[in-house]
Formats: sequence, structure tokens, C-alpha cells
Amino acid sequence: TRTIDLAVIPGDGIGPEVVAEGLKVLEAVLEGNDVQVATTQYDLGAARWHRTGETLTDEDLESIKQHEAILLGAVGDPSVPSGVLERGLLLKLRFALDHYVNLRPNKYYPGVPTPLANPGDIDFLVVREGTEGLYCGNGGVVREGTPHEIATEVSVNTAYGVERVVRYAFEKANARPRKKLTYVHKHNVLVNAGHLWRRTVEAVSAEYPEVSVDYLHVDAATIFLVTDPGRFDVMVTDNLFGDILTDEAGAITGGVGLAASGNINPDRVYPSMFEPIHGSAPDIAGKQLADPIATIASVVLLLDHLGLGAEARRVEAAIDQDMAARAAAAAEGAPFARSTGEVGDAVAAIVRQG
Amino acid sequence: TRTIDLAVIPGDGIGPEVVAEGLKVLEAVLEGNDVQVATTQYDLGAARWHRTGETLTDEDLESIKQHEAILLGAVGDPSVPSGVLERGLLLKLRFALDHYVNLRPNKYYPGVPTPLANPGDIDFLVVREGTEGLYCGNGGVVREGTPHEIATEVSVNTAYGVERVVRYAFEKANARPRKKLTYVHKHNVLVNAGHLWRRTVEAVSAEYPEVSVDYLHVDAATIFLVTDPGRFDVMVTDNLFGDILTDEAGAITGGVGLAASGNINPDRVYPSMFEPIHGSAPDIAGKQLADPIATIASVVLLLDHLGLGAEARRVEAAIDQDMAARAAAAAEGAPFARSTGEVGDAVAAIVRQG
Ligand SMILES: CC(C)[C@H](C(=O)O)[C@@H](O)C(=O)O
Ligand SMILES: CC(C)[C@H](C(=O)O)[C@@H](O)C(=O)O
Repeated sequence: TRTIDLAVIPGDGIGPEVVAEGLKVLEAVLEGNDVQVATTQYDLGAARWHRTGETLTDEDLESIKQHEAILLGAVGDPSVPSGVLERGLLLKLRFALDHYVNLRPNKYYPGVPTPLANPGDIDFLVVREGTEGLYCGNGGVVREGTPHEIATEVSVNTAYGVERVVRYAFEKANARPRKKLTYVHKHNVLVNAGHLWRRTVEAVSAEYPEVSVDYLHVDAATIFLVTDPGRFDVMVTDNLFGDILTDEAGAITGGVGLAASGNINPDRVYPSMFEPIHGSAPDIAGKQLADPIATIASVVLLLDHLGLGAEARRVEAAIDQDMAARAAAAAEGAPFARSTGEVGDAVAAIVRQG
Repeated sequence: TRTIDLAVIPGDGIGPEVVAEGLKVLEAVLEGNDVQVATTQYDLGAARWHRTGETLTDEDLESIKQHEAILLGAVGDPSVPSGVLERGLLLKLRFALDHYVNLRPNKYYPGVPTPLANPGDIDFLVVREGTEGLYCGNGGVVREGTPHEIATEVSVNTAYGVERVVRYAFEKANARPRKKLTYVHKHNVLVNAGHLWRRTVEAVSAEYPEVSVDYLHVDAATIFLVTDPGRFDVMVTDNLFGDILTDEAGAITGGVGLAASGNINPDRVYPSMFEPIHGSAPDIAGKQLADPIATIASVVLLLDHLGLGAEARRVEAAIDQDMAARAAAAAEGAPFARSTGEVGDAVAAIVRQG
């Protein structure tokens, strides 16, 4: 019997509700297999910070490092000053665990309400760099609060950091039928970082002759995401551009309530962390109103990362089936009104049948 | 007789074609008025760079500074290395002429093809900061071309620079019926710059009690631009976020071919510069295929800046009428196929009748 030793960080707001459904589906897909899940819950987030002033202690971090992987719901609450939990907890985990790949698949399920008139066939993967760029926390403030204040933010980009994520993106593109990689930057303005990215993409591209490569400025990429999202297969970009583009991508495919992500350390030196890309949505927390699909889709990425590809495909198929049932119900004018738990139950039931 | 002394930079690609139509409409609206236009053409852009290696000499700059305003088409060509014309010409002008406001109105004209299923009523103004942030050209490269390369980009933000653009945005919001200002940043990650922006907005907001203020993270703003663009009235943000969001905004209102901009020095120390937000589109250059509306709409901003409000409104009304005629033709299944020059002629003719 293999035991997956999973750290679970439910977090704030709707985090605990969606994580419960992710775990429900994870257990369902492993039933009858020779694989078990052992979970350890970590009470990180707003409540802990209010109680103790701690975001993520060295002890927490050491303990989390012992696990095989992490499932996270969402962190953040309006009662906590902006930046405290983001930088002290979420980004601290991504950086400390060297999650240099932030993997964000985007898929349009037919029938799902989308703001686009003609969404077409949307199925692409964003490979967002996770440990560099403007997210480093580099920069500072001089003469704070005076009329002479200067505030800086430094984007740090290294050959080491760019190459490893670009290589990962080429691997992903090479394994997909269309074999197309779009890299996104703003190298006409950010010439230092931009040219490093460009040279790196060109160099690595020589090793993947079958992958076709194109480039878009980030501003142009926001245009194509609404006018022609079907053109994208794999997209690779830096930390900030990836943050921006994946929220837009989530919006066109029917909302960030469906969008999954994996913060991955491909070298497996540290545990990787899987989380929906949505936030903690405090306004609907505790009401069983959140859609747990994004978390369940993050479990698909978790299963793939753990080498449980067959199980990943079963959960993926169950999500497809649930989305199709939603579309059918909506088409008949009777859209589902299900609780968070009911959606999880439905997907788990399909998984069990499958 | 008042003479407007206008510097004209047609630039590259479709630049000369669209600028010709902007000037045509400008002359039409001033006919019979006691106002004339004197234009001086500057041959800046790719051709000049290929010929002389120059982008913008001190002499060019001194000469341009003597004019009352600038009309620019587009600069950039694939034959010129990325960044050379952007940083050596376009951004050099914006910075040297202290264009701290980059004003970008967005309006949806009913009937215009848009990727959105329900565009609704879109009419907002983006006030993009133009002289700070990541556009400063601050940063550098260490160990270039080696596996140990480090490339940095520094976003520089000052109380002085943020306050003046925020104040301008409040003025604009206060003068509009909805009186709503949305400021956009990413203060949960970019805490130094973000908190400077936040404190500044809060401080200036006390002087404009009638303006309601809200905040969005830049990633969330990309979502609302597609799911609920009608919520925006005036948006204020930094240089890079403004670049990204205005391209997305252009896409949802029917393409950057319609989107105007003004690079404005509100203190009138230096001439302001008006340009369509689209690029030089070398693929369609010289074919009279470009839509000159974005340039004509930039002329509206130019007229307003010169205090010729009545003339601005006449051109604006003519654009509205041309867009309505397009929509009507498209609705009848016979969309216009007009050359760049024919569109300019049509708008100029409406202006003359008006
Ligand atoms: C909460 C925030 C720090 C985070 C980010 O910017 O990466 C979020 O927006 C995301 O995309 O995961
Ligand atoms: C050409 C480029 C430097 C420019 C910018 O980034 O500002 C353009 O995209 C714009 O929006 O005017």
C-alpha cells in the first residue's frame, strides 16, 4: 500500500469548503486502489494571524516540507492588511519550496456561461514562472509618507531561473498534439529581462525542433485572449504577466471558479502545492455557494504530479461529465443550484462509477 | 487668427496613412473658424534610424519642444531591433516632455463587432501614469549571455509622480456624471509601490468627497473588463498596468483600431502628444487598409487640450455618426469596405455639414 502524505492548508473564506470537496474526490478516486491518503491539516491563514501574529513559522515550514504534496484552498481576508498573508504565507511557500513552475491549464467546457460571443475551442496551458520577477519582494521605500517618498519594486530575472521554466514549457508543448509555444513578455520596454527571456527561448528552442514558437507582447496577449483564445496551446511567461493573463484566461473560460493551478517543483526537492486560482471570497464564505471544481481540477494536477495518471484522467473525465450535465440543465432552462458539497458529491459519484 | 503650431510625426507602417486622415479632419473642423494649423513634419522612425542610426537627437527634441502639440501615427518596424525605437523615440518623447498623463478613453459604439456577447454600455477613461514605474529604463544586466546572467527591471514610483496623476484622475472623475474612480494596482504583492499608490489615493480622495473610489488588483481588473466593463468610469493606474489594461479595453470595444490616446503634460510646460494606441501594423502598411478612427479620435483629445471644446465635440459627433453608419450597413449585411482615405473623407464631410 502506497500512502500519500498530504499537507492540507484549507486557509480562509471558502478555502475550507472547497478543500473538503477536493479531498472527497481524491478519496473516491483512490478507493479500491492500493493507494491511501494521509492528511495533516495546517491552520495557516487569517485566523491564525489574528490569534498569534504568525503567518508561516520556520517550524510550520519545516513540517510542511516533510510531506509529499500540499493542497491549499485560499488565503486572504479583508481584516488582514494587504500583503501580510500574500507575502508572509502564500508567496513564502512558493519561494521557500522553490515552486518555479506555476502551472495553470485553461479549458472551455461547452455550455458554460462565458462573456465571449464565440469562445471556440479553448484548451491551453499557462506556464507561469513562480520564483522570480517582481514577486521577489525586492525593492523598498525611501522617505515614506513624505512628499519626497520613493518606492521601488525590482524585478529579478536570472538565466538559471528563466531557463528552467522555459525548458519545462517546451517539454509540455512537445508532449501536446499542437506543439506550439507562445512566450509572452514586453521586451520592447523591459529590455533587460525581456532580452534574457528571448535569448533563453531561442536557445532552448534549438533542442525542440518540433515545437513552433511565437512571441507576444503582454498587451497584445490580453487582446488575443478575448479575440482568438483558440490560438494558444502552451504559454510561458514571467510571474507578474502570468498572474494577470491567467485571471483573464479564467474569465473567458467561465470564471476563476473553474481554474486550477499547481505550484510545482519539478525536481521534487520540495513538495509541490496545488490550489484553485480563485481567492478566499469572504463574501460567500461558509454558505456552501462556492464552486469546488477549481479545487477538484487542482487535484487532477496533484494526481498527475504524483504519477497517478490513470486516476487523474478519471477525475478529469468526471469533471467533464459534471460540466456537460450543467450545460444540459442550463440549456433546458433549469440550471443546477447545488451546494459546494453537492457538486463534490456528484463528481465523487461519477468517479466511483467510472 | 490663431495658428496652431503642430509637430507631426507620421512614423512607420500605417502611421503616415492614419495621420493624413487625422489632419484632414482637423482642417475640416477648423474651416471658417479663426483658427489655422501649421504643421511641421518630423521624419522620425525606422527609415531615419536605418539611414542615420538616429532615433531622436537633441536637436529634434529641442525643435519639437517649440511646437504647441504633437500628432504621432505609429513607430516600430520588425527590421529594427526590439526596444530601439520604443525606448529611443516614443518613450523618450513621453519622458522628455513629461507626459505624466496617458489618457485613454474607451467607448463602445453599438453595432461594432466585439468579442463580447453582451458588451453593454462601455464608456470609461483610463488615466495611465506616463513617466514612472517600470518604464523608467532603470535596471541592468550582469554577466550577460552567461549561465549566471541576472537581469533586473526597476519600477520607480514617487509621491510627486503618483500624486499628480492621481489628482488628474480625480479631476476627470469629478467632472463626469458617475463620478467614480477605480484605481488598479497589485498592492498585495508590490507592497512598496502599491502602498504609496493607496495612501496617495486615500489622501487626494479627501479633497473630492463626491467621487466614489474603489480598488482592484490588476488581475481582477482584467476579469471585470470582460465580465462587466460597464462598471468602469475613470480608472487610474501605473504605466505598465495601464499599458496592459488599455489594450484589453481596446479589444473589447472593437479593436485597438478605434482607440485614441493623449500623452499629456497638464501643466503645459511641454507640448502634449496625441496618438492612436495601435502600432505600425507593417503587414497592412501602404495598402489603405488601416482604420483611421483611432487617430481621428486622438484629434478630439488634441482639440480638447487646445481649448477647442466645441470643435472637439463636432469631431466626436462625426465619429459617432460614421460608426452608426457602419453599424447600419453591417446590420443590412453589406458592411462598408472603405479605404483609409475614404473613412477620413466621410468623417471630414460630416464635420463640414455639422
Ligand atoms: C494572492 C496573490 C499573491 C496571488 C498571486 O499574485 O500570485 C494570486 O493572485 C494568484 O494568482 O495565485
Ligand atoms: C510601443 C510601446 C512602447 C507602447 C507602450 O508600451 O507604452 C505601446 O504599447 C503603447 O501602449 O503606447
